[in-house]
Amino acid sequence: MKYCCYCANPVVLKIPAKDNLPRYTCENCGAVHYQNPKIVAGCIATWEDKILLCRRAIEPRYGLWTVPAGFMENNETVAQAAARETFEEATAKVDNLTLHSLFNIPHINQVYIVFAGNLAQPETRPGLESLEVNLVEEQDMPWDEIAFPVIRRTLELFFDRSETPPGHVYVGDIGPKWGGE
Amino acid sequence: MKYCCYCANPVVLKIPAKDNLPRYTCENCGAVHYQNPKIVAGCIATWEDKILLCRRAIEPRYGLWTVPAGFMENNETVAQAAARETFEEATAKVDNLTLHSLFNIPHINQVYIVFAGNLAQPETRPGLESLEVNLVEEQDMPWDEIAFPVIRRTLELFFDRSETPPGHVYVGDIGPKWGGE
Repeated sequence: MKYCCYCANPVVLKIPAKDNLPRYTCENCGAVHYQNPKIVAGCIATWEDKILLCRRAIEPRYGLWTVPAGFMENNETVAQAAARETFEEATAKVDNLTLHSLFNIPHINQVYIVFAGNLAQPETRPGLESLEVNLVEEQDMPWDEIAFPVIRRTLELFFDRSETPPGHVYVGDIGPKWGGE
Repeated sequence: MKYCCYCANPVVLKIPAKDNLPRYTCENCGAVHYQNPKIVAGCIATWEDKILLCRRAIEPRYGLWTVPAGFMENNETVAQAAARETFEEATAKVDNLTLHSLFNIPHINQVYIVFAGNLAQPETRPGLESLEVNLVEEQDMPWDEIAFPVIRRTLELFFDRSETPPGHVYVGDIGPKWGGE
């Protein structure tokens, strides 16, 4: 950030009064431009004993598999964001969303919040950001072709019922050593 | 937002290619300025059967009571943010944080994520943003002087063990009819 988005004056990095971290600050109009982590909302959408996977048609990790997930938008809930991403990426509607896991990825300022839910019907088709979509049983999971460490960890927990008993919400962190995002 | 924070050119509100929502976009440098919800991290800090409340020394809701909570910063986890706010507002250290609740407040683009944890010791003192801090038993709760609807609802759930059995994470929404924030 170089300029104030309200008045176009150059910003300076300084610690505002009564604050303790440097912020981009406009000395013309007085605006303080805070920067905060973003929520990525995702969905493990199931049909019987299969889960919905999407093969990415966009970078990063083009061609690798993920569950539907993306940045939460203003004016929606996290569950609405998860359902919206599922529809955008796989043309699939999900019901009965329950919170499954929350993963911090502090080195890239993201918080993944993933729900589990039921597909309303098994018919799906790729959205603009997916090359293909598929309903996959546990024994057929493409573990070596999962797009992101946070998604692989989330799916491991989903299938490992001993780690996540019914109703349990898993909270964890993903660090740079996992390969980041 | 009126100007691009990277090049100071005026921005326009338009739907970028392959997108479906209007975004502030710079037609000079091509930057798309996304706006996303912010996470407010909070902590119900307990000592025996008491919880830590802080009386706000800042607007909004100056003089009313809350649990320590504030905007999550970059480069931290949600639990670290909750613990940091507890220290900043009440000079108190907390251990054993577990996820208690997640509340969407879509009309103000906030997601409250609140942990429960144990105070390391019962001595606390007000930080810069608190007029006073207090350890309060359930029967002494100042229910009519709680600063925010989301905090009141979170504390109701915390004390109503029938709604939140051990390990349960409550997910809910707060709408404008609750009085917003």
